[in-house]
Order: sequence, then C-alpha cells, then structure tokens
Amino acid sequence: MTTDKYVIGIDFGTESGRVVVVRVRDGEEMAAVVVRYPDGVLDETLPGGGQLEPDTALQNPRDYFLVLERGVPQALKQAGVKANDVIALGTDFTSCTVFSTTQDGTPLCFLPKYRREPLAWAILWKHHAAQPEADRLNDIGRERDEEFIRMYGGKYSSEWFFAKVLQILNDSPEVYEAASRLIEGTDWIVWQLTGQEKRNNSTAGYKAMWVKGKGFPERGFFRAVHPRLENVIQEKVGTEFYPLGTPAGGLAARWARATGLREGTPVSTGVADGHASIPASTVTKPGSLSMVMGTSFVQMLMGRERRIVEGICGVVEDGIVPGYWGYEAGQYAGGDMFAWFFDHAVPAHARSQAKKLKLPFTAWLEKQAAALRPGESGLLAVDWWNGNRCVLVDADLSGLLIGATLSTPPEAIFRALLEAAAFGTRQIIDAFDAMGLHTQDVVACGGLPAKNRLLMQIYADVLGREIKVAKHPQTCSALGAAIHAATAASRQAGGYDSIAEAAAHMAHLRSETYRPRPENQKIYNRLFQEFRILHDYFGRGVNDVMKRLKALRREILAL
Amino acid sequence: MTTDKYVIGIDFGTESGRVVVVRVRDGEEMAAVVVRYPDGVLDETLPGGGQLEPDTALQNPRDYFLVLERGVPQALKQAGVKANDVIALGTDFTSCTVFSTTQDGTPLCFLPKYRREPLAWAILWKHHAAQPEADRLNDIGRERDEEFIRMYGGKYSSEWFFAKVLQILNDSPEVYEAASRLIEGTDWIVWQLTGQEKRNNSTAGYKAMWVKGKGFPERGFFRAVHPRLENVIQEKVGTEFYPLGTPAGGLAARWARATGLREGTPVSTGVADGHASIPASTVTKPGSLSMVMGTSFVQMLMGRERRIVEGICGVVEDGIVPGYWGYEAGQYAGGDMFAWFFDHAVPAHARSQAKKLKLPFTAWLEKQAAALRPGESGLLAVDWWNGNRCVLVDADLSGLLIGATLSTPPEAIFRALLEAAAFGTRQIIDAFDAMGLHTQDVVACGGLPAKNRLLMQIYADVLGREIKVAKHPQTCSALGAAIHAATAASRQAGGYDSIAEAAAHMAHLRSETYRPRPENQKIYNRLFQEFRILHDYFGRGVNDVMKRLKALRREILAL
Repeated sequence: MTTDKYVIGIDFGTESGRVVVVRVRDGEEMAAVVVRYPDGVLDETLPGGGQLEPDTALQNPRDYFLVLERGVPQALKQAGVKANDVIALGTDFTSCTVFSTTQDGTPLCFLPKYRREPLAWAILWKHHAAQPEADRLNDIGRERDEEFIRMYGGKYSSEWFFAKVLQILNDSPEVYEAASRLIEGTDWIVWQLTGQEKRNNSTAGYKAMWVKGKGFPERGFFRAVHPRLENVIQEKVGTEFYPLGTPAGGLAARWARATGLREGTPVSTGVADGHASIPASTVTKPGSLSMVMGTSFVQMLMGRERRIVEGICGVVEDGIVPGYWGYEAGQYAGGDMFAWFFDHAVPAHARSQAKKLKLPFTAWLEKQAAALRPGESGLLAVDWWNGNRCVLVDADLSGLLIGATLSTPPEAIFRALLEAAAFGTRQIIDAFDAMGLHTQDVVACGGLPAKNRLLMQIYADVLGREIKVAKHPQTCSALGAAIHAATAASRQAGGYDSIAEAAAHMAHLRSETYRPRPENQKIYNRLFQEFRILHDYFGRGVNDVMKRLKALRREILAL
Repeated sequence: MTTDKYVIGIDFGTESGRVVVVRVRDGEEMAAVVVRYPDGVLDETLPGGGQLEPDTALQNPRDYFLVLERGVPQALKQAGVKANDVIALGTDFTSCTVFSTTQDGTPLCFLPKYRREPLAWAILWKHHAAQPEADRLNDIGRERDEEFIRMYGGKYSSEWFFAKVLQILNDSPEVYEAASRLIEGTDWIVWQLTGQEKRNNSTAGYKAMWVKGKGFPERGFFRAVHPRLENVIQEKVGTEFYPLGTPAGGLAARWARATGLREGTPVSTGVADGHASIPASTVTKPGSLSMVMGTSFVQMLMGRERRIVEGICGVVEDGIVPGYWGYEAGQYAGGDMFAWFFDHAVPAHARSQAKKLKLPFTAWLEKQAAALRPGESGLLAVDWWNGNRCVLVDADLSGLLIGATLSTPPEAIFRALLEAAAFGTRQIIDAFDAMGLHTQDVVACGGLPAKNRLLMQIYADVLGREIKVAKHPQTCSALGAAIHAATAASRQAGGYDSIAEAAAHMAHLRSETYRPRPENQKIYNRLFQEFRILHDYFGRGVNDVMKRLKALRREILAL
C-alpha cells in the first residue's frame, strides 16, 4: 500500500485567504483554514494614513503573506499531513488585481518612498476609478480596429489590467517610472513563492489584451494611448505566458521555512479565482455551463472554436482548460442584489415573524417566497441593480420592478428578484445558444448554491435545464487551485497529466440536483418573454430613461 | 348685540362619524366629536353571523344612528351651544353607499326576515363585488350609445349605484323585490332625520346616470340590462332631485329628542363627502382645483360649460356648486400607496435610527427624503399601486419603480412614491388644461396635507402651481356639511343665501402655502416627460405587460 499524496490549494479572495489540503487520489478535503486579511479592502485610508479618492479599492500585500505564514502550517496540522506527502502547491487570486514592483517583485508600497502613493499598493479588482482610462483605451482601440475590442464583446472594462496601468501612469507617473514590473496578483504571488516570474496565459487573455499566437496590440496602439506607454510590454510586462496547470517553479527556501513545506515543492502557474472553480465543479469540456454565484454571477462555457457572441466579457483560447476556447459572461448583481433587498427593503414585521419561528429572517423570506407559485406574485423585475454586464455591457442601466399593488408582500418582491437573476442568466445562455454554443446543464458553485435552494429551483425552472451543484460550493476556487497543483505535479510525481484528468478524480458534485418542473417552466417561458421585451425596450435604446435618470443624478450631485 | 348662530355638520365616513359645531358668522369650529362605528366595515361576517364573499363591504345602519345619538349632544355640550342657537343641520356621507329600505325608509336588514341577507345591509362605497354588473351596464350602455358613457369618461364604475342595485337583483332577488326604495346613503340619512325622502341631484348625477333636464336612461336601457330592472326608476328610485344646500325638511321629533336639537331645525339635502369638502376649502368657482388627499386622491374642478375630458370620473351640472359644471377626477392610490410602503418595505434600520432620534419612523423617512434634491434619488415611479382611475380608467394597471441600484436607500423609494403621486395629478391637470379647463392653484384638504409637508412642496414643484391648504384639512367634509346647512337655513334665519356666500364667510385657508421653487420645477419638468413616456407605454396599449401579469396572477390563483 502506497502512502496517500496531497496537494495544497490557496484561494486569495477579497476579504480573506483560504487554504485547503486535498487528497490527490479522490479530492477529499482534509482541512480548510480561512485567514482574514487584517487590512481588508482599503477604500478610505491607507494603512499609514492618507485619504483615498472615491471608487478606490486597494490591498496591503502583507495580508497575502499572512495567509501563507498562518494558513498553511495550520491547515497541514489540521489535516495531519506531512510536508513530504505534499506533492504540489497551487494558488488562485482575485483578478484583475494589479501590482507595481521592483525588479525582484517587491511591491513598491513596501518602499518608504512610495508608501504614501495609493497606486503603489495592490490595486484590487473592484477598484473603479479608472473609467476615464478605460474610455480612452476603448476609443483608441475602436479607432484602430484592435482585436481586443472583439475579444471583449465590444468593450474593455475599467477593472482590467491596462486601465489600471494607465491610471498609474496618469495619476502617479513616478510610481509608473519606478515600477520595473507591472503584474497581475495571481502571477505576483507565484513569483513570490518560487522566485521566478512566470505569468499565466489566462488572465493575460481575459484582462490584458493578449492573444495566443499573436501577443499584445502593437506599440503603435500603446503610443497612441499615451506616449510613455509605448514600451510598456517590453519594459514592464513581458511577452512569455505559460499554460494553466503547469509548474511555474519550486517553492523558495524562504517560503518553505515560513510554511513548513519542502523547499522545491512544485508550484503551479497562477489562475483567476473564477476560472479555478470551473474544473473544481467537474466542468472540463463544452456543454456544461459553469456558474459562480456569489455577490455577482459569472458564467463560463467552453467551445471547440472561436465564435463572436454578443456582449460576452471575453473569449480566450486555453483560457479555462487548455484545448478549448473559454467564454466568460456575467451579471454585475447577484447576491449583492439580494443583500440590497435584505438591507433596504425588508419590513420589521418580516423580522418579527421570523423571530417567532426562530428562523433567520432571510430563511423566513425564502420560505414565504417558496410558497408562491410562479406568476402568483404578479411582479416582474429586471436584474440591473448594478448595471448589465452581459449581453448589453452597460453599467448605466438600473433596476426595474413592475406589477406592485397595495397587497404586494415583501416575499413577492424577494421572489421577483430571484427570478430576475435567472432571467438575466437565460438571456446570456440564449446568446451563447444562438451562436451554436449549447448549454446542456449548469453546474453551480459559490456562496449562494449552498444556502438558497429556492434560487436553484427557480434557475432550473427558468433555464429549463438541470442545475447541478459542486460538492463544496463555497471552496470551489481553493479546490480548483489544488487541481491545478496536482496537474503541475504530473502523474510521475503522483499527480495527474491534465486538468481534465485531475478534475475527473478530484472534483465531485452533490448527489442532489435541481430539475426543471414542466408546469413552472411553462409559466416562466411566458414571463421570460415579458422580461425580454422590457430588456430590449430599456436596454437597447428604445427608451433610455435609465441612463437619463443616472445622468440627472450625477448632474444633481455635481451641483 | 345679537347672539351668535351655529350650524351642525355631520360627516358620515368609512370608519367613524364626525360631528362639528360651527359658528355661522366666521366658520369657527366650536367643537368636534368623533364617534367610531362599533361594527365598522363588515367584510368578513355579518353582525348576527354569516360568512361574506370576497370583495364584500357592508355597514350596519345602527352605527350611523349612534353618531347622531352620542355625537350631537356631546358636541353641543363641548361647544357650550344651546339648541335654540342652532339654525340648521347638514350631513355628508360616503358615496356611493346604497340602501334597500321599506316604504318608510327602514333598512331591510332591520327586519328579521332579511338580516341574514348580506345585500339587505348598507352596501358600502368600497364594496367591489359588482364588477360583472358594471361590465354589463357598460356593454349595454355602449351598444345603445347612452349618455352616461360620455358623462363618466367612458366607463361606469363597479362602485356605483346601478352596479350595486343590479347585484342585489342578481344575487338576492327577494331583497330586490322587498325593497320599496333603493337609495344613496347621503339621501337615506336625510330621510331619517326629516321623515321626508328628498334626494340630492349631485350623487344622482355622479353615481346614478341622472342628467339635469334629461333624467335617467329610458326604460328600454334598464330592460335590456335585466327584464326586472325595467321599472326600477318609477318603482324604487323616483325622478325628483333637489339642489345642494337647499332645505330637505325639518328635524323629526324622534331625532330632536335623541340629539337635543329643536324639532323642525332645518336639515339640508345630502351631499357626498368629497364634494362637501370643496366649498370648505374655499373653492366655489372655476380656476381652483380642489384636492382631497386621503387614502386615495380626488381632484375636483368647476367649469362654466360642459367639455369632454379624457378619462374623467364624472361631469355633472350643479354637481359641486350650483351654477357650474362639476368635474371629478381621481387617483386610486394616494395615502394607501404610502401606507403600503410603510408596512411592506421600510427596513428595520430606518425604525431604529428613527427611535434614536425619538421620531416616528414615518417622520424620520420624510426628513431623510426631504434632504434629497429632485433627481438625486435616480428613481422614477408610476403611481398605479391600485390601478389608474384617471385618465386611463384602468384598474388592471400596476405600480412601477425604475432606477434602483445597490445603494438605493428606503428614503429614495419613499420620495419617488411621493413624486409619482404628484406626476399622476399633473397628468390629470394637463388633461383638464388641454380642454380649456385651467387650474390656477390647488387647494388641498384631507388627512395628508396636515401631516406631510414634503408631499405638499413636491406637489407645488411638480405642478408648478401654488398649493394652498384648508385651515382644518382633516375636518373639511364636516365643515362642508355645516356650510350646506347654513345655506339651507338661508339668510333670513341667520344663514346665507348661497353655498358660495356661506363659504366666503365660513371657509378659511392656512396662511402658509407651498410655492413652486423654480430650480425644482425645472428638474421635475424633465422627470415628468419621462413619467409621461412610461405612462403612455404601459398605460395606452404599447406594452400591456401589467395587464398580462395581473391576468397570469388570476389564472394561477384560480388553479
């Protein structure tokens, strides 16, 4: 009998990092440790003091180190696993989170000279201050008919790599000059662990305009955007990118000491958190839509070839699983929209009734909403509480609720919001479908599938497809990082030779799935027709009232 | 020095009756007494037992007697006024509330034989079970091109006289047969007080198809509706109607004893509560729009001639003040819509913050909403929480909220609802205006103007007109009844010779008015354009989604 082998997966999230120890043979989660970031999201002041502009979101890189130093030893201990039996380590990271560093990878914010410069810190994915920069990139990109405009469904987001880089150049030119390297967090942490800067080809494709076989837009594009950006690729980014699930190097001595792992333990290339979760939900080929349902929703589907799909967030060759084109779509508001409802629109009587039944009020609301049949609420909502990401790609759209009467109870509104999210997803699946990218079933992970059964049933009924749920929906990303690690280790060292093979052994679904109920499907087909009419009326320029309301609000606030 | 003279006004409302003693010289309110109806609105069971159908709303006529027996002596005592100094008594009543009685006016429900028959009780204005009957009246009316179709803006309501009468005939034919008289509550109470059946021409016009100089639709119409209805006018209703503010008779001995008033004290003809409040808000001629702002909103305007105005609830010659055509319009949801919001959509944190400031949470919400500038909420609502009464006359329309985001606070929604009510009123005023019926200013009474200053300012800003408020907005109807009484008494007996003259002395406004603020008006003009686009898109058949949602709901509930 041979000893079991293990891999470690580390998921660097927005508020905390999560370390799992996973058995390679069957994916069994031996331990899971969460380490909260002491500094969390920096959106008001810098750690050393210093006020931040609105829409700024930064992080302190020391928080990530803490996850390694505390989380790994604790997870090993909890799992009862010895360092010698750990065959590889994998990480995933929020994306697009951008670092400016010295030649050896030290974040500029660690240098006294730059610690008071906000943009010398890690610029978090949800930093929203680079919209003017994104606008400029899109304008020049469209003028020059750059490939990336098509790749990203017509629009490069303010959250992405070059928007943030351009903001550094515009707002803190001295940080830009001092930055020997500009790098995604997911590649930076791998560099820290191994001492080698080996970037992955997936975030390069989804966030940084890189195309397999073609590379980046040419210098002329960057020069047109800003003269000092002309050589950004050659000077600060580099042109070599490595596939997902390949070894980036061995664990450096410093981190071996700090974590208790063996020096030289293979470390896999970086991956974005959303993408890591896909093989962890058993999805490794076309046909199954993988959906991460958290504060926002991300849908990912693979295809054998490249198609142009309306309003898609990105399509990248090898971007999810090598060998396929990975398509990414999403909805800006998911759990966030339900949280808005819980915080801002649930009446006191709902809380007191829930208390009487000794239920959390959210569970009480779900129970009440579940007692309503489709169509019974008389309501219809459109899920644009945070704008529309796909297929309209328009942050200036807003939420809509129609059908309220004097007897509309809060649970009816709650159910309408759940249904609206599902209608929004159906719109995306239909867009894929129209281009020949068919979705047979949906596999869900993230925070919501574990706790909201009603939402999952509504999804099955609205989409008319079976909804499966990952075995541990809340630790999908960390398991995904572990799967990447097992692949980087290779079969020779006790791992696997491909992500698909690793996922086939290590990823599992819950036995319970949600199947569409024909009688509900019929009603939802009718309601979805109504949703689509409103979607097009308000979203495709027939009546731009939502944009005018937002513009008016901005005008008033600027007075 | 002559002794001051007084009149008594009695307002028979939905939940209670209100008795005021008013000084004739200047309208000073000497006393006001409220008597709650012990049986209130009967909508579940009859007093002696017996389950009621959904949408039924009845009352026990004994409750009205109690208002006379308890309220009048108490008010006289409180005012320190002697019966000899009371020169007349006036009443107003909810409308259209329908009684079936014996030849002497005894309600059939007082007879043991009929006490278990729901429709033998007073059928309250908000009884909503006669929709099939209203549909039939409208169908036959349209087929025969009857005058009343135009009078009522295209549609006779299920709340009105002949819809209820036809329901009695359909559902309780023995009650219909036994009813020697079928009569509006406002005429019935006057008959009780004086012993003489003298009906007023205003409710006859607004609710019972009667036209001055022409009378009722001819027998052929009623026969076409139902063979046994053919002679309803001749047998059970009568054809003589008396103007508002004229004497209907003297107080009967029985009621003199019960109230402590002199036998023979003049009693004025009956009037509907909404109409009574108009002269009490000083409005007695064209140009000022009188608006009752309670659970629903009613707008009344006078004109020198008859015009056809889109979707008006009714236009009746002499219907408000003799000498003018009275136009009535309204919104089904007013205070009701705000109450829905308070009950169903105000989060716990609003209540706890209000508590900290020792404010009722409604006052806290108003304070927060008042701090928002027009347009700042980013929201726009359409006020159809209870359907649209004017100008679309469509109960199947429903509420709409547009513009919600993840940071929309409850006070923004509250403000949007206040604005929506004002936009709905503006739509009505614009419809009047388009027909040459111009509104210079608005005089408000009812429960809301006394308590919601923000609402009144929003009205001024949205309507672009000065909003005045009656001195005692909550007792407008009772004061109106008193003004009718003073007119019935005539100048000879210490009263006045016309309603206009009486109102000129007895009705007063608050010195504080609400004037439009030009900067707000500009913003609201822009928002009203948006409101109008949505109003027409959802209300005029471009997208009937609201009707389809209601139809689907009914379909689901019927399964």
